[in-house]
Amino acid sequence: MRVDIITAVPEFFEGPLNSSIIKRGQGKGKVEIFVHNLRDYAHDKHRMIDDKPFGGGAGMVLKVEPFFEIIEKLKSERDYDSVVFTAPHGKIYDQREANRYSLYENIMIICGHYKGIDDRVREAFATDLVSIGNYVLTGGELLAMVMVDSIVRLIPGVLNDSESALDDSFQDGESIGAPCYTRPAEFRGMKVPEVLLQGDHGKVKEWRAEQSKNLTEIWKKINKNGAQL
Amino acid sequence: MRVDIITAVPEFFEGPLNSSIIKRGQGKGKVEIFVHNLRDYAHDKHRMIDDKPFGGGAGMVLKVEPFFEIIEKLKSERDYDSVVFTAPHGKIYDQREANRYSLYENIMIICGHYKGIDDRVREAFATDLVSIGNYVLTGGELLAMVMVDSIVRLIPGVLNDSESALDDSFQDGESIGAPCYTRPAEFRGMKVPEVLLQGDHGKVKEWRAEQSKNLTEIWKKINKNGAQL
Repeated sequence: MRVDIITAVPEFFEGPLNSSIIKRGQGKGKVEIFVHNLRDYAHDKHRMIDDKPFGGGAGMVLKVEPFFEIIEKLKSERDYDSVVFTAPHGKIYDQREANRYSLYENIMIICGHYKGIDDRVREAFATDLVSIGNYVLTGGELLAMVMVDSIVRLIPGVLNDSESALDDSFQDGESIGAPCYTRPAEFRGMKVPEVLLQGDHGKVKEWRAEQSKNLTEIWKKINKNGAQL
Repeated sequence: MRVDIITAVPEFFEGPLNSSIIKRGQGKGKVEIFVHNLRDYAHDKHRMIDDKPFGGGAGMVLKVEPFFEIIEKLKSERDYDSVVFTAPHGKIYDQREANRYSLYENIMIICGHYKGIDDRVREAFATDLVSIGNYVLTGGELLAMVMVDSIVRLIPGVLNDSESALDDSFQDGESIGAPCYTRPAEFRGMKVPEVLLQGDHGKVKEWRAEQSKNLTEIWKKINKNGAQL
């Protein structure tokens, strides 16, 4: 898989793309991630990438020309399965979507920043509008990272067997994983649940299923009137 | 405001904490953000921070001792308004929550990683369980960044007047901002909506309100059966 990220703040990605699973995915050759600096495609003398909004109001708007140049360049080099725009009115991202994207070969992610991107860019190129939730962020960079992180771990061969994503929370679209514990079995009087120490795999499975069910019920209650508009 | 982040992957935060609005918030002295490396609090000879789960199964679990040491140290130094654990079964984060946190003085965010954190740590310290959405991520680092980014921009004095967060999408908990445009007024035959060029502020306001309403309706339709479990 190849992911192209277009951003006004490329320095953002240095840590996130070079840590943990994503680093490993790239090291194993399972994914190539390219971060493109929008400013490299601004050619006026001040290398301006933003300007005041038509109609007035607060904030700056990212200009049309640099986006057209870099997006058209990339599209001329290969076919993209998806050109994602980060947008507050987009589809809220979830594990189903992560699974869908993990099957793609080429993904482009366009990060908004400041007040937003001149809407003609979206009109010309967007195949998907994506949001990660109902909160205001400075830019689309965190959304890009959420997508990349959740997608990369689904690409076969990125995770080790021992990290199998299969029993992760949400992977089945329904349930939340049971609490986990490791040594010591007792710490300051706080004990690991007996059933996990007894070696009866059937009972462990049963206990985990019950815990998972309970947590999922709690989750549903907490978020009943939660994050939806 | 002071934010303490506890993580097994401190290198993740280098770019995100040093770019854009968050960098400025720190520069202006409005927020101090400290990233604590969990590994600095592991004292066995291999500096192990994780171990196999009791009861068997895939993945590694973050151990209890390093968390107790760093969390108790921090709590002995100041009072925390909130000790946040990143958790799939947490309350889904939204702008209302961002507003709430932006009023706090000291926030601690504990990032899960790998299979998760020994549940006794949550039991002992968590005041809030938070999720940013229904997808599987490698760790809580992205959630920590989403929280920090959305909170810092709400602290008075961080944004310039011209960036006023007030008409941001979701800030009023209801509507999504209208599309924005900047120069040139025409690009490859794509024109900026006439009303934005005519200088009639009343009409601009009306147009934006209508666009905003339409986008919010679209959003509601798209996400009707969306991200909820």
